[in-house]
Amino acid sequence: MSHAVSPLAPTDVPEMPEIAGVKLATAEAGIRYKNRTDVLLAVLEAGTTVAGVFTRSKCPSAPVEWCRAKLSRGKARALVVNSGNANAFTGKTGKQATALTAQIAAKALACSPNEVYLASTGVIGEPLDATKFDGVLATLAWAATPTGWMGAARAIMTTDTFPKVATARIKIGKTEVTINGMAKGAGMIAPDMATMLSFVFTDAPISAGALQSLLKAGVEDTFNAVTIDGDTSTSDTLLAFATGAAAARGAPKISRAGDPRLKAFTKALHDVLADLSEQVARDGEGARKLVEIIVEGAVSKQSARRIAMSVANSPLVKTAIAGEDANWGRVVMAVGKAGEPADRDRLSIAFNGIQVAKNGARDPSYDEAQVSDAMKNPKIQIKIGIGLGKGRDRVLTCDLTKEYVAINGDYRS
Amino acid sequence: MSHAVSPLAPTDVPEMPEIAGVKLATAEAGIRYKNRTDVLLAVLEAGTTVAGVFTRSKCPSAPVEWCRAKLSRGKARALVVNSGNANAFTGKTGKQATALTAQIAAKALACSPNEVYLASTGVIGEPLDATKFDGVLATLAWAATPTGWMGAARAIMTTDTFPKVATARIKIGKTEVTINGMAKGAGMIAPDMATMLSFVFTDAPISAGALQSLLKAGVEDTFNAVTIDGDTSTSDTLLAFATGAAAARGAPKISRAGDPRLKAFTKALHDVLADLSEQVARDGEGARKLVEIIVEGAVSKQSARRIAMSVANSPLVKTAIAGEDANWGRVVMAVGKAGEPADRDRLSIAFNGIQVAKNGARDPSYDEAQVSDAMKNPKIQIKIGIGLGKGRDRVLTCDLTKEYVAINGDYRS
Repeated sequence: MSHAVSPLAPTDVPEMPEIAGVKLATAEAGIRYKNRTDVLLAVLEAGTTVAGVFTRSKCPSAPVEWCRAKLSRGKARALVVNSGNANAFTGKTGKQATALTAQIAAKALACSPNEVYLASTGVIGEPLDATKFDGVLATLAWAATPTGWMGAARAIMTTDTFPKVATARIKIGKTEVTINGMAKGAGMIAPDMATMLSFVFTDAPISAGALQSLLKAGVEDTFNAVTIDGDTSTSDTLLAFATGAAAARGAPKISRAGDPRLKAFTKALHDVLADLSEQVARDGEGARKLVEIIVEGAVSKQSARRIAMSVANSPLVKTAIAGEDANWGRVVMAVGKAGEPADRDRLSIAFNGIQVAKNGARDPSYDEAQVSDAMKNPKIQIKIGIGLGKGRDRVLTCDLTKEYVAINGDYRS
Repeated sequence: MSHAVSPLAPTDVPEMPEIAGVKLATAEAGIRYKNRTDVLLAVLEAGTTVAGVFTRSKCPSAPVEWCRAKLSRGKARALVVNSGNANAFTGKTGKQATALTAQIAAKALACSPNEVYLASTGVIGEPLDATKFDGVLATLAWAATPTGWMGAARAIMTTDTFPKVATARIKIGKTEVTINGMAKGAGMIAPDMATMLSFVFTDAPISAGALQSLLKAGVEDTFNAVTIDGDTSTSDTLLAFATGAAAARGAPKISRAGDPRLKAFTKALHDVLADLSEQVARDGEGARKLVEIIVEGAVSKQSARRIAMSVANSPLVKTAIAGEDANWGRVVMAVGKAGEPADRDRLSIAFNGIQVAKNGARDPSYDEAQVSDAMKNPKIQIKIGIGLGKGRDRVLTCDLTKEYVAINGDYRS
């Protein structure tokens, strides 16, 4: 279960400030493992708005379906997250478990079950015994405090090797507001799959509709531009909650995502999501290298994204980076298989700023020793020039190591 | 460079018969490595027709472009294959190298360069010194014999752990004809990528157009239904040559793929391609398990193919199989991410005939010990019922082991 902390873990962990209207508590409910926190309750002030984006899987988990169904109401009073069991592929029982969890939380907080949001991560196909939340959630509701963000980030971990948090403070009008975020990344609980969960909280007074637009736009170049192994979980969930508590300090209530007063907030939200999603890549299973793929000169941004994803998900590119090999032949291969417009004779490729190929052939000035040296860096940037247009995009991933196979290929315990 | 023979290598290797009109010879040309054969020349009787299918990569190798350009002429007198250098991403030099190789072969055989077909596999981005073929091809043209099929299959290997051949004998009308095939699979020459090459020869008198149709249809459920790691080479090439020599023994000349007299031939060609492509999967880098994915009940065959490929290319599914773990949660995940119509609550999944999940949940009768035992088999079948329609498809792959990472992640030598 426990793995050494990723060598790519950030060295600076921010102090997480309080957010007016948000209280947190965690507990050991014994969902699957003993002696670790596995339940997080976030208690949200009345009036909190909510937005969410979810996995594109055609076989989503029961909590994903629960959240999707409630989202149009736009109101939240609680978030319940458990690790240890994903409540995915659990049929009718899974649906009943979400309803029961929401009921227990609603009773503890004197709100409607429709205002309770849920996320689960862990083993798939095992029924989640929601009665375990009975008692626990009432205790948590009582114990919740505005602090404890690191503990919350820890309770939602599975095989993550470090808790992931990010924070930003900006102004809406003349009033300071805060954004706090946490994420769990591409870890798994043996013998199960990676799931990405992320939760963002702010005291800014923003309508559910505007928050949804901001979140959808914010995810495009952050979480959606990160890949560990190309495998999409049944349970990926990103929820944003805006308590609106800053209104009491004079922040204007905003109901349109395009409102110019949201400019700094929009950028800060993007930064928090970018920070969290980079941490997810840094904690990719078995990762030893953080890999940034930049594609320039594609026919469109979308085309650049597809090419970058093809490179980022290529096992041959990822194993080459694990071997500190600037193997641009494999990059060419991955560009070629993306199916997007590309002309071999215009391609250029650079590793960490050192050009190794241009105009469809090896760069004659390329110095193997210099490149080999650059590949020892824990952060590898692969810049690919397509030479056809102005489309540009960026994707983050990590290398593919024997440790990844060990983590995911161990016998079912 | 050398790896132990795959535990999945076939135990029965067929005796390869002669094919009237085909002579073979191999040599050590020192393309990249010493003390191994790295050039194959197949000498083809005048009147030989040719068909080919190639990589869908947008950045194909120079030999792929050469073959594509010649194919409409439909005539072949020689095939030159080298290992050690892929002549891919080599720019103008690469094009010159193909022209020079064809010229040297044409001179040796007194034919036109337009009748010379080429394939190269090995390192990418290094110029191929075609002058190395000078002298060598003339010697080979003189030395070529109707035997030596195993030696030919060996000369085109890279990190393949065994040579791959298949043969079939059937009748067209009352005359017996033969099909011989060889392939090299998903091996690499450090530090380079996997490339699939396959060559099929027959003495049947079939027009180039008919042969092209048969080959295109034949590849759909054979080579196109095999994946090792989802990475498409710049150089994948399958060529078929029909010498027509059986006409002298009374075989009718056939110019339409739909000709009913080709029924047995069409099936035999499919069988040879299926045999070779299964051998490619059996020799996947680091493979310890041959994995057959069968998808039934999808909305169409195409949809079933996409779902099967999503499962076959999932690193989480492939590592689970390496760990002998019947992790159907990961199969659900891979079905869900395929983006094809699927209803979680109708899904059923079986490993080696043992049903583990049905109607969107764990099969209550499923016996963990029995499944664990079945997972020790070197051949694993995953059968997935989608429950929506009649679309069915089958894909072959292998597991993802630490050895795959070791083979592909070693430092550039």
